[in-house]
Amino acid sequence: MSAARPQHAALLQFPVQDDCLAVGGVPLTRLAQRVGQTPFFAYDRAAMTRRVAELREHLPPSVHLHYAMKANPMPAVVQHMARLVDGIDVASGGELRTALDTAMPAQNISFAGPGKRDAELSCAVAAGIVLNLESEGEMERAAAIGAQLGIQPRVAVRVNPDFELKSSGMRMGGGPKQFGVDAERVPAMLKRLAALELDFNGFHIFSGSQNLKAAAIQEAHDKTFALGLRLAEEAPRAPRIMNIGGGFGIPYFPGEERLDLQAVGQHLHGLMDRHAPQLRESQVVIELGRYLVGEAGVYVASVVDRKESRGQVYLVTDGGLHHQLAASGNFGQVIRKNYPVLIGNKVVGAGRETVSVVGPLCTPLDLLADQMELARAEPGDLVVVLQSGAYGRSASPAAFLSHPEAVEVLI
Amino acid sequence: MSAARPQHAALLQFPVQDDCLAVGGVPLTRLAQRVGQTPFFAYDRAAMTRRVAELREHLPPSVHLHYAMKANPMPAVVQHMARLVDGIDVASGGELRTALDTAMPAQNISFAGPGKRDAELSCAVAAGIVLNLESEGEMERAAAIGAQLGIQPRVAVRVNPDFELKSSGMRMGGGPKQFGVDAERVPAMLKRLAALELDFNGFHIFSGSQNLKAAAIQEAHDKTFALGLRLAEEAPRAPRIMNIGGGFGIPYFPGEERLDLQAVGQHLHGLMDRHAPQLRESQVVIELGRYLVGEAGVYVASVVDRKESRGQVYLVTDGGLHHQLAASGNFGQVIRKNYPVLIGNKVVGAGRETVSVVGPLCTPLDLLADQMELARAEPGDLVVVLQSGAYGRSASPAAFLSHPEAVEVLI
Repeated sequence: MSAARPQHAALLQFPVQDDCLAVGGVPLTRLAQRVGQTPFFAYDRAAMTRRVAELREHLPPSVHLHYAMKANPMPAVVQHMARLVDGIDVASGGELRTALDTAMPAQNISFAGPGKRDAELSCAVAAGIVLNLESEGEMERAAAIGAQLGIQPRVAVRVNPDFELKSSGMRMGGGPKQFGVDAERVPAMLKRLAALELDFNGFHIFSGSQNLKAAAIQEAHDKTFALGLRLAEEAPRAPRIMNIGGGFGIPYFPGEERLDLQAVGQHLHGLMDRHAPQLRESQVVIELGRYLVGEAGVYVASVVDRKESRGQVYLVTDGGLHHQLAASGNFGQVIRKNYPVLIGNKVVGAGRETVSVVGPLCTPLDLLADQMELARAEPGDLVVVLQSGAYGRSASPAAFLSHPEAVEVLI
Repeated sequence: MSAARPQHAALLQFPVQDDCLAVGGVPLTRLAQRVGQTPFFAYDRAAMTRRVAELREHLPPSVHLHYAMKANPMPAVVQHMARLVDGIDVASGGELRTALDTAMPAQNISFAGPGKRDAELSCAVAAGIVLNLESEGEMERAAAIGAQLGIQPRVAVRVNPDFELKSSGMRMGGGPKQFGVDAERVPAMLKRLAALELDFNGFHIFSGSQNLKAAAIQEAHDKTFALGLRLAEEAPRAPRIMNIGGGFGIPYFPGEERLDLQAVGQHLHGLMDRHAPQLRESQVVIELGRYLVGEAGVYVASVVDRKESRGQVYLVTDGGLHHQLAASGNFGQVIRKNYPVLIGNKVVGAGRETVSVVGPLCTPLDLLADQMELARAEPGDLVVVLQSGAYGRSASPAAFLSHPEAVEVLI
């Protein structure tokens, strides 16, 4: 008995009309005409709205939802998200400028990231947003800058937890880390903080990201609440904000199953109920990036050449790792897996074949699909990489080999 | 007996004056002032000139040297290289524009890369450069575009060899590949080529890159000459160009030893002598990118914060994977190794310590040095990543988290 080959999770966010994928209600062939070039990224406004609604349905109503704009900093996307969520988290001075261009009140914008430069701290203090302090040194610099500007900085303490989010794509807590202040050192830091001209706002506890296991997230939530409440007792005043991080993952690769959001939500309901008395003055915040926008986006490239080499068919496209690095396997992952890929204007197609989809770069790493079954495609057809709404364009080496940039549209 | 820990190869391209590294003769602290910001990349003009001279010394004088500008497309670098080498190889329409801005004659510029768009083919034909044809389909498109423009396209055939360059960082030949035309199909293609309005210029045979083993390169040269000469017999006329590729590597990681250029050169002398009669009308070309510029560049960032977490010291800098992705480990390589890193203004320093150097991004992957012994550094000190002259800035996700771009200077 042979095991069934792992499949990609069902992805139903985009309807198919006449065998053509529609994004934002526009058939892809028409969308390509409207954009005027391939490659492009298209993000579906309604898909983002639906995702936020789904979260609101499952999460306790008193939990606030923040958008971590590092996942997709396209200004139009940030503007759209700003109308849907309760706050925005930024990771640089550049992101801060984009966030401040939205109608989001400054006190609902927070800035996390190690190595904030003085110029960034200064802008953040002037804007009145919440600085998530990453170290004792940053706290001192923020206080000095506040004194210079005559503005009391709003600050929260980013905590490096004493646990980690298990089975995570990326572990952000537990053990030594560059992020935040070790949980065991936070009480001493809070004493010093109280003595400085700083407006204490709360805690930011982030333990991992891209997690598909509800049980792991539930366990992390238990530990995050316990840690946050323990640290709150040492704080100069009740924390206004208790940011418990994010970490909700989306399925990318064959065999990955969708996160059970209902289970995560139910567990969080229980935690909120149990700790309601201690959290009277605190706003619990969940900060999500990829989970809000990742599934709402596609990357679209045109087939430029169709060629065979020693029995294998290659579709050579005008798009590749310079725009969608993660889908290519990040410059040579040891175990590379395919993102979900299809021929956008021939979803089922007249015939199927096993092909590799490559980009125009002079490197074998420029691979968008390795030996996948797709509809038979010819030059001019549109290759679509799904799950491309987060960490796509902005996380790729756009200048590599000096090809044209990918356009982004929000529909 | 315990084995000695592997060390980085000796890197002597930059002198140290008063414990400060000098690039292009300028001490790094002064250079940082002159540039006006960190992070920056600095490339040393004289180091590139020396590297070309070294190659000329070891390679047969009749072998031409081309610069593969994908390694470093900074216009000033390309201008400098254009005065030193015999030709430039480009990988996109964007690179072609930069190359055409130099004084290099068009017929010494060649354009390789799968998936060339019609617009790129058209520019290339109009410019009169040599198109390295990657497929039969591209040949037909080039001929059609030539007919439209009334210009006979200069073409060479890129061959997917029937062997590979062993022990390579990247294999570009052998087995099915997106590059070039399978060697066994080239004779049929040449027949068709002769019937089209195309000016046949020769062959491009590239079997791998970033190789540190002279024996592997010697073996590849043997096979490349044999293949090229065999295919030449099928050509419509004697190949004007026999591009045998590059593949010369530079040492990046502990334990890597420098390529024995003398051994490669001697072997090539033998091959050229042996095949002189057959090569009377052909120009043998070696195409190098990384080997010409990789060691001539440094990436420089400032320490913004110095922090400890659970017994480990972190230097947090204003630079990171968004500028120098390869040094960080390309978004999570399974076995990550350190590039050579030092404190540029304290090369030896007053004291030494084991630290990790991280960047400002909110990801644990933003790591420039993992537990390395460096001079003790404080905020304001300059972290230098050596071997950063190739595939640094242009191969990194500059927009990731919207931090400022790195400046580039050629000194």
